[in-house]
Amino acid sequence: MSKLPDPDTPANKPATKDSKTLWINSPALERFTKEAFQAAGLPEEDAARVAKLMGEADLQGSDGHGIIRLAPYIRRIRSGGINVQPNIKVVHERAAMAVVDGDNGMGHLVVSRAVELAIAKARECGVAWVGTRASNHAGPASLYARMPIQHNMIGLYFAVGNANHLPPWGGMDMLLSTNPIAAGIPAGDEPAVVLDMATTVAAYGKIKAKAKRGEPLPEGWMIDRQGKPLTDSSRSHEGFLLPIGGHKGYGLALIVGLLAGTLQGAAMGRDVVDFNADFTTPTNTGQAILVIDLEAFGGAGPFKDAVDTLVRDIRSSERLPNVDRIWLPGEQSHQRRSDYAKRGVPLPEALVHELDELANQLSIRPLDR
Amino acid sequence: MSKLPDPDTPANKPATKDSKTLWINSPALERFTKEAFQAAGLPEEDAARVAKLMGEADLQGSDGHGIIRLAPYIRRIRSGGINVQPNIKVVHERAAMAVVDGDNGMGHLVVSRAVELAIAKARECGVAWVGTRASNHAGPASLYARMPIQHNMIGLYFAVGNANHLPPWGGMDMLLSTNPIAAGIPAGDEPAVVLDMATTVAAYGKIKAKAKRGEPLPEGWMIDRQGKPLTDSSRSHEGFLLPIGGHKGYGLALIVGLLAGTLQGAAMGRDVVDFNADFTTPTNTGQAILVIDLEAFGGAGPFKDAVDTLVRDIRSSERLPNVDRIWLPGEQSHQRRSDYAKRGVPLPEALVHELDELANQLSIRPLDR
Repeated sequence: MSKLPDPDTPANKPATKDSKTLWINSPALERFTKEAFQAAGLPEEDAARVAKLMGEADLQGSDGHGIIRLAPYIRRIRSGGINVQPNIKVVHERAAMAVVDGDNGMGHLVVSRAVELAIAKARECGVAWVGTRASNHAGPASLYARMPIQHNMIGLYFAVGNANHLPPWGGMDMLLSTNPIAAGIPAGDEPAVVLDMATTVAAYGKIKAKAKRGEPLPEGWMIDRQGKPLTDSSRSHEGFLLPIGGHKGYGLALIVGLLAGTLQGAAMGRDVVDFNADFTTPTNTGQAILVIDLEAFGGAGPFKDAVDTLVRDIRSSERLPNVDRIWLPGEQSHQRRSDYAKRGVPLPEALVHELDELANQLSIRPLDR
Repeated sequence: MSKLPDPDTPANKPATKDSKTLWINSPALERFTKEAFQAAGLPEEDAARVAKLMGEADLQGSDGHGIIRLAPYIRRIRSGGINVQPNIKVVHERAAMAVVDGDNGMGHLVVSRAVELAIAKARECGVAWVGTRASNHAGPASLYARMPIQHNMIGLYFAVGNANHLPPWGGMDMLLSTNPIAAGIPAGDEPAVVLDMATTVAAYGKIKAKAKRGEPLPEGWMIDRQGKPLTDSSRSHEGFLLPIGGHKGYGLALIVGLLAGTLQGAAMGRDVVDFNADFTTPTNTGQAILVIDLEAFGGAGPFKDAVDTLVRDIRSSERLPNVDRIWLPGEQSHQRRSDYAKRGVPLPEALVHELDELANQLSIRPLDR
């Protein structure tokens, strides 16, 4: 317990500003991403929107969801697995809810449309739930849970992961995914409280990152088909992720999948398409956002004051031996965002070379650095 | 991994029908509970409602929340810590939300009122959120998450626990509780999927039960002030509960507390009153229910069919070695309910003797057996 894991350390964050890390400024990343999507057929406005959201992911350190995903996204588009001119529309609606059909468009476009609609409905009804179907991978959950904050609203976000690596508790059939939960809670003078967590001990991206670096897996991340700890990262395909809290995390992953997937008529269980292995089948991804308007609950002011007090009480808690600091969820991302906005986003040199190849394929200007 | 914990094993369930266990039928428990509350000053209708909900808790095996709580509840009422004739009223309202002020009444009355209101609002708006303040301990979270199911609605329930035993991750100040999450999901021919989980590895009631039996705590349930595993159950007061998934469970407990407590103007953080130690201070407990009407999402039929399919896929998953069966959340409670309805509810003899004393104090007829 003396060594505390960083609540939101990026999976692939280069440790230092060494020779293998290039620091690229955020506008350069966005420019490049936007042009890549345009070259792949997205309308300019849509390309700009996706590029902005992917740029925000990198800025906050969610680098498993930033520009590292550009080449796979472009590959999926060019394989016909994404509709570049989707007709995103509401298919079910009542005063405080809607289901948005994404017509297999980029997930970022579908989900941000859903969040905007939920914000508008919450302003009227106090609370609103908008789900998606026929959507796609949309980047880090926290991006969307954070959106309502600037409107003095809470966001609570659920998503079905885009590959099943989690069996039910006691089982071996991978029917569940890392199904994340994210929450964005407005504060006053303190940074907003932003939780973004997979319901598994480790997200699959972290396993892949360990394998890439030839590092062993900590015990508790995965088990093999005998139910024994699997720590050899090169054998990760032989095992399963473990849910947080054992049977509890299994239950949580299941409920998140039912809410974000089944409820909207989106994929869940056996229907989930592994987007890392199959680049053509529509994923029918489902996501859901719940937005809560603080004004309806007696006003944002008293709520934010109470959050500030709680945040300060937590931060100033007496600490266990060898603990330097107590973090609030989202606080490290918050610090990283202001740091990377000044210094640029750290990218592994190998990734930058891949992006140069992509620029070549798409006949666009390479990443500026 | 070969030995799977029961997802919802009761804390104090007597193992066998031995000499120290009495099997009491459910109507007898309800009759006794109702008369006890009436003798303590609750109006007949309110006493009946609380008795029915506590009886349901025992029937489903949530025995830490059933008749075992009767004596402490009565003690709180007689100490002036509960208002027996509360004016439960809506203090904030919009189309899809409300905040119910419980006027320090019994939690069961306040929360069931909130759930009824949320069901009515969800029928209009598709989705509704109703929170409580000035409420009290209301029994197992699953009771309330289950209520919308019979209306073809989903229930999602959050509560602030009634004693802080959880510090922030890395800290020692117990600012957080076991803050539970529960979900009730309608199915078709299969039993409903009902999750009810504390955000800590073990609920505090399970620690107390281990201490009572003189058994050690499994490693991973608690740590001491050095951050080392605490396994001596007689020393539980010297340590802290551990959240599920480490920092993730800490984040989850915090978000649940913000949603169920702070948002409603109810107690959270330093304000939480330990209801096991203080029988007079109003607890200002907060709870919240989100209700989702399946009819708004394209109808309950297709949803329930999809849940049935998923449940069967999960149940028939290939199993790890030495695993006899894969359980769905709530399935064991479901089986227990039909079992106990026939056989009666198992109560430790010592508890029955305590209830006899209570009957004596309140001048009511003892528990029938």
